[in-house]
Amino acid sequence: MGLQRTQAGADSESAAASFASSSAATVTPRLLLDEAQMLRNIERMNSRLLSQGVQLRPHVKTAKSIPIIERMLAGLPATRVTVSTIAEAQCCVAAGIDDVLYAVGMVPGKLAAVRAVNQAGSKCALLLDSVAMAQQLSVACSIYADAPPLPVYIELDVDSHRAGVEPRGSELLEIAQILQASSSLQFAGVMTHAGASYECRGAAELTAMAERERAGAVLARDRLVAARIACPTVSVGSTPTAVFARSLRGVTEVRVGVYVFQDLTMVGLGVCDYADIALSVMTTVIGHQAKRNCLVIDAGWMALSSDRSTSSQGLDQGYGLIVGERGDEIENAALLVSSVNQEHGLVTRRDGVRFDLTQYPIGSGLRVLPSHACATAAGFAHYDVACADGGSARWPRFGGWA
Amino acid sequence: MGLQRTQAGADSESAAASFASSSAATVTPRLLLDEAQMLRNIERMNSRLLSQGVQLRPHVKTAKSIPIIERMLAGLPATRVTVSTIAEAQCCVAAGIDDVLYAVGMVPGKLAAVRAVNQAGSKCALLLDSVAMAQQLSVACSIYADAPPLPVYIELDVDSHRAGVEPRGSELLEIAQILQASSSLQFAGVMTHAGASYECRGAAELTAMAERERAGAVLARDRLVAARIACPTVSVGSTPTAVFARSLRGVTEVRVGVYVFQDLTMVGLGVCDYADIALSVMTTVIGHQAKRNCLVIDAGWMALSSDRSTSSQGLDQGYGLIVGERGDEIENAALLVSSVNQEHGLVTRRDGVRFDLTQYPIGSGLRVLPSHACATAAGFAHYDVACADGGSARWPRFGGWA
Repeated sequence: MGLQRTQAGADSESAAASFASSSAATVTPRLLLDEAQMLRNIERMNSRLLSQGVQLRPHVKTAKSIPIIERMLAGLPATRVTVSTIAEAQCCVAAGIDDVLYAVGMVPGKLAAVRAVNQAGSKCALLLDSVAMAQQLSVACSIYADAPPLPVYIELDVDSHRAGVEPRGSELLEIAQILQASSSLQFAGVMTHAGASYECRGAAELTAMAERERAGAVLARDRLVAARIACPTVSVGSTPTAVFARSLRGVTEVRVGVYVFQDLTMVGLGVCDYADIALSVMTTVIGHQAKRNCLVIDAGWMALSSDRSTSSQGLDQGYGLIVGERGDEIENAALLVSSVNQEHGLVTRRDGVRFDLTQYPIGSGLRVLPSHACATAAGFAHYDVACADGGSARWPRFGGWA
Repeated sequence: MGLQRTQAGADSESAAASFASSSAATVTPRLLLDEAQMLRNIERMNSRLLSQGVQLRPHVKTAKSIPIIERMLAGLPATRVTVSTIAEAQCCVAAGIDDVLYAVGMVPGKLAAVRAVNQAGSKCALLLDSVAMAQQLSVACSIYADAPPLPVYIELDVDSHRAGVEPRGSELLEIAQILQASSSLQFAGVMTHAGASYECRGAAELTAMAERERAGAVLARDRLVAARIACPTVSVGSTPTAVFARSLRGVTEVRVGVYVFQDLTMVGLGVCDYADIALSVMTTVIGHQAKRNCLVIDAGWMALSSDRSTSSQGLDQGYGLIVGERGDEIENAALLVSSVNQEHGLVTRRDGVRFDLTQYPIGSGLRVLPSHACATAAGFAHYDVACADGGSARWPRFGGWA
């Protein structure tokens, strides 16, 4: 299955191993991050996108941690991020990152919070997908006569997945015209997220979805330009479409988030290999159920999340795939966390074949590779990091909404 | 569906409504708690159990908040709690609650942390279900010659759900004998949790499961007593079995947690009615997707969790049931959060009938009743409380493991 690391990963593996052994006296579950692997993931995405002449605007919702965000931005020519909460914007601005896109549909009730972020030094751009909200925000912002106009993106729907206006529809032009006429708002560009890429099967579908994302955004841009509305930014992105896109012609920036850690859902999509996953949950075997041939571990849905994204993929990975305490493959990668309660997980073989529980004594450590890295990381207040230099560190995560 | 509150709830409803309207200018999603309804839930469970002559040992894993735990304990003759993490034990001990049961199978790697809690003033009892762990813990604890013996419960498996030894098996007696012979550990009793009650259908199945839980625990006690091993405590519990038990004969304490808030899973089991649910997530409509006839809200899996417990019940409630901004029933209780991403939820009708999106303007508020209160609350750092006295408060939650 490719869990064995290449030589490039050997140093970080020994760092992770030393971290794991020194943790024997500490409490599980804990969230482990392999910094060297994370840096390889970042470098690979940066190379892929920068070589095509587009900018990256990394999404911080996966990492939610300043030391990680700094590493995501380190190799990039421009310091810009995407956020999914105003709390993420606040933390980024406090860390000196001033170019922020709040990529969730804006409503007037959040304007005071956004304005506070901007007063702290940010130029936080907003997102909307309706004529009604363009009008409301324009009025609501006009009371801040002293403030520069707020940059606003129009969200496009390219895949019937979630939000956005049709690239071919009339609303796109109507909204852009309202923004253009507003003295308190400034039209910044179009953006879309092909979230349906997570449900694709195989490279051909993913490549087609990436092209649909690109083509929809570029079509919208072309329609705006034809209507004499300047559209400086054409922003697309999801980790799967960023990896499978054959062309990014016309795109100016790409937003990606989960690439930093990777996870089993990305493995299932063919985006990465198991060895690329930089995040895992350290857990302890707390019981054996011999009759049902399962291990009980101290990682339940609080530590792993209830995410079941892989259940609709070719290979269902349950609530996570079990590897050894050092991240090594065990049982031919057949052990899954097959059910979870709040603080308990049950580990069985995916093929139903019996396995020898005594190989995993009560009190011994195992790791769980995450089904969905964003959701698993969200259960923890910090990362226990095996640093690329061989040391260890604890990096805090931020949470909440405002 | 019974969402309309009775007169008893009218005061707290107006408190909640005033809270909701004053919140228009603040950021959603937020976790709302109706204190008066919570107090009714607590009072009902206390009356039910105390009238049967058993003690309560409330589980704090649902609430994870000292003001709530204080209210759970206020009407009880004994101040004792159940915890699922050492962090919960730490917070309870810091708040002056000294009788704690750590109800997840113990391993030696957590002994130092438990010992620190006990040195802070607690008598934290432990749980195990294997001969191996009884032996290991006895040896591991023997180095603390100065400390009093650690109380230890033996976990019983009454429902093939998760962990525990068979009430009829030989391991029960073997473990108890090891504990009895140990100078560092002290046998405290037997405990079990009929987690399979969450998968029951109908009152008859739940009553049978409650009896199975009681009978298994009492059988284990009787076998121990027959072997001349004193078994002071017989501890059982889950909210569903506590509510449906016809007899608690022989039981000394009951552990319950979710009763404090109630949720859609409990409604589906017949444990409570919709109007009993004291917890909800305030969300804002951030978009309309007319073609797909759905609302987009700013509550995704970060705010609601990915819990799908109701999917195996008679009525699938998706990721939560939509009610009005004041908790009032809307659309005949047919609007569900039918899919979630990290910060987005899509709201559709469960019956597929089209509904009028314009009734729910972009920027307006809605509430989501939680599928699983423990999981939904876990996404938040605090409760926004509509207090029983008509005021409002913000109560912090604790998290993490140690």
